[in-house]
Amino acid sequence: MPELRRDPVTGRWVCLAPGRALRPEAAHDSAIPPDAHPADCPFCEGREGRTPPEVAAIRPGGSGPNTPGWRVRVVPNLFPAFSDDDADADLADPLHAHGPALGASEVIIHSPDHRRWLPFLSAEQAELVMATTSERYRRHSVPGVGSVVPIYNHGREAGASLTHPHGQVYATRVASPVLDEELRGAEEAYRGVGNCVFCSMIEVEEAQEVRLVAQAEAFVAIAPYASRQAFECWIIPRRHAADFGEVEDEDAAALGVFLRDVLWRLYQEVGDVPLNWYIHSLPNATGDWSRSFHWHLEVRPKLTEIAGFEMATGTYINTTAPESAAAMLSAHGGPSPEATDPI
Amino acid sequence: MPELRRDPVTGRWVCLAPGRALRPEAAHDSAIPPDAHPADCPFCEGREGRTPPEVAAIRPGGSGPNTPGWRVRVVPNLFPAFSDDDADADLADPLHAHGPALGASEVIIHSPDHRRWLPFLSAEQAELVMATTSERYRRHSVPGVGSVVPIYNHGREAGASLTHPHGQVYATRVASPVLDEELRGAEEAYRGVGNCVFCSMIEVEEAQEVRLVAQAEAFVAIAPYASRQAFECWIIPRRHAADFGEVEDEDAAALGVFLRDVLWRLYQEVGDVPLNWYIHSLPNATGDWSRSFHWHLEVRPKLTEIAGFEMATGTYINTTAPESAAAMLSAHGGPSPEATDPI
Repeated sequence: MPELRRDPVTGRWVCLAPGRALRPEAAHDSAIPPDAHPADCPFCEGREGRTPPEVAAIRPGGSGPNTPGWRVRVVPNLFPAFSDDDADADLADPLHAHGPALGASEVIIHSPDHRRWLPFLSAEQAELVMATTSERYRRHSVPGVGSVVPIYNHGREAGASLTHPHGQVYATRVASPVLDEELRGAEEAYRGVGNCVFCSMIEVEEAQEVRLVAQAEAFVAIAPYASRQAFECWIIPRRHAADFGEVEDEDAAALGVFLRDVLWRLYQEVGDVPLNWYIHSLPNATGDWSRSFHWHLEVRPKLTEIAGFEMATGTYINTTAPESAAAMLSAHGGPSPEATDPI
Repeated sequence: MPELRRDPVTGRWVCLAPGRALRPEAAHDSAIPPDAHPADCPFCEGREGRTPPEVAAIRPGGSGPNTPGWRVRVVPNLFPAFSDDDADADLADPLHAHGPALGASEVIIHSPDHRRWLPFLSAEQAELVMATTSERYRRHSVPGVGSVVPIYNHGREAGASLTHPHGQVYATRVASPVLDEELRGAEEAYRGVGNCVFCSMIEVEEAQEVRLVAQAEAFVAIAPYASRQAFECWIIPRRHAADFGEVEDEDAAALGVFLRDVLWRLYQEVGDVPLNWYIHSLPNATGDWSRSFHWHLEVRPKLTEIAGFEMATGTYINTTAPESAAAMLSAHGGPSPEATDPI
C-alpha cells in the first residue's frame, strides 16, 4: 500500500508506491502510437472489463456501465498512488515521519480513439473531455482535501505509461508544495500592488501583445514572462476565481476547445514533443486566497531535459525567449472543429 | 546575453539563455560513447584550442596551459548561463522583473579519457577530480554569492550535451530555491530536536542499518528515508560543516573515491542509467545556518521520468523503497583502485 514519508530536512512529502513498479511500460518511444486498436490496450472500446469498474462516463446512447458506447470514461487508477486505504501514521518521528497516502487517483480516458490525443480530437469531444475533468475535480473537492490536480502526460518521456490518450485526476490529503509556493507568492503580490497578479498579467500581456499565444472569450493563453522551458504556455481564465470548481459548465467546455487550440499550435510549431499539462487550483478557496489566487492551466513541453542544475537549485535555464515562442505560436491558425489525423 | 527573470507569482528566478540553444546535441543516445576519441570532441587531449582558455588544470609533467599533458582541466563554459557580464536590471516591475545572470559557469573535464566516467576512472583520478571540484568551489565562494553548486549530468536524458565526462560548477548571485528550502527545513529541525538533522541521520541510519549504502572513514552513503526517486543516494560527511569550502584537501580527495564507489554500486545494480549528482552547500555559512545545515552530495538516478504529477505538485511518487535500494547497493563490493572498462 502506498505511504507518505516526510523528508526530515525540507518537510516535503514523498509518496512511496512500490505497487506502481508493476505498471506497463509504454510500448512505443513515439508519442503517437502507430496501431489504431492494439490488442493489449485496456482503454480501447470493448475492453471495459480490463479496467477497474468505471466511476463516471458519458454515454449518449444510454449504454450500461462498463460496456461499449461511451465517449469519455473515468476509472480508478489500477495502480493508485493515492487512495482511501487508511493505515498507521507517525508524524512525530523527526527522521522517519510517515502516514497513509490518502486521496484518489483516477484516469479519464479522453475518447475511444486510441490514436488521437486532444489536438486531433473534434472540438466537441474536447468539450466533453474538459466537462468530465471539471466534474471529477468537483467530486474530489471535499472538505479537508489538500490538493486536487488534473494532469496529462503526453509521450513516454513525459511519464505516460499507456499510449491511449488519458488524463488523470489526483486528490491528496497533503498540500502541494508547488501550489503552496504559488499561493504565498500570489498573496504577496496582491499585498504589493492591490490586485490579483494573474488579472494584472492578462491586462498587461494583452496590452503589450508580445507574449500572447491565443485569445478567446473566456480565456487568454500567454508564454509567461519567466518561462521555465521553451514554449511553456499558461491558459488563464478571464473571470477571477481561485477554485477551478467554480467554473461554469459552459466555460469548462470552452476550456477544452481552447486547450485543444493551444496544443494544436504547439504541434504545428515544434511537432510531437513530450509534454505535460495540469491545472493549478485551490479547492474550496476562502478568505485571502480567494482574492489573490487565480486558477490556471500550465502546458510544459519537454524540448530539452531537466538537468542537474535545475534539480540542484530549482532555477531553470531556458534557451527560448517566451516572446519568440509567442510570436511563433500565435502566427499559426487554430484547428478546424473536426477531428483530424496527426501528420 | 543571459538574463534572469523573476516569476511574478512565486518569486522564483529563471535564467533565460538563448545562446545556449546553439549547444551541440549529444551524438549518442547511450550514456557510454562507443568511440574512444571522436574527432568532434572538444574535451579530448590535443583539442585544447577548441575550448575557451583553461582557468585551472592538473599538469603533473609541468606542461603549459592549453596544451596536452593534463589530468583534470577546467575551462569556462562556451555557452555560459551565468557570467560576469553586467546589464540593466529592473527588480521593481511586479510582472517583468529582470536582471543580468551574474555568476560563473565552469566545466571540469574529469580526465583525458573520453570513454570513462567516474566509476571507471582510477581511484587516484577520482581524487584529482574532487580535489579540483573543491578548489573551484572555494574559488567561487566570494562574498555576496548566492549559491555555488558543483553538478554532474550523466547521459543525454539527464541533460548531458557532450559525452566526454565532465562536471560543472555554477556560481549564481541569486539564491537557490531548493537550497533555501533545505536551509529553512534544517533550521526548523534543529530548533525541534536540538541537533543537526544530518548528524542525527548518520547516527540513526548507522544504528538501524536498513538504509545504509556504504560507509567510509569520513563519509556515509544512505538511501534517504523519503527518497524521491528509485535508488536516490545521499553522501553525508561525518564531520559537521555547512560549507563544502571548509572540507580538508584529504577529505575532498576521499569524497571522490567514495562517490566513485557509490556510482560503481549503482552501475552494478541498475546498469548505465542517466543520473545527476550535485553538492548542496552553503558558501560562507555563518550563524544559525552553520549549526543547522550540513553540506552533502545527492545522487539522483533517472530510472523513470518525472511526470505531470511531480511537476504540478512538487510531490514525488517513488516506486522503489529506499530499504530495498540500500539492500541491493550495499550487497555489491566496491571497485578496485584501477581504472576499468564499462561492461
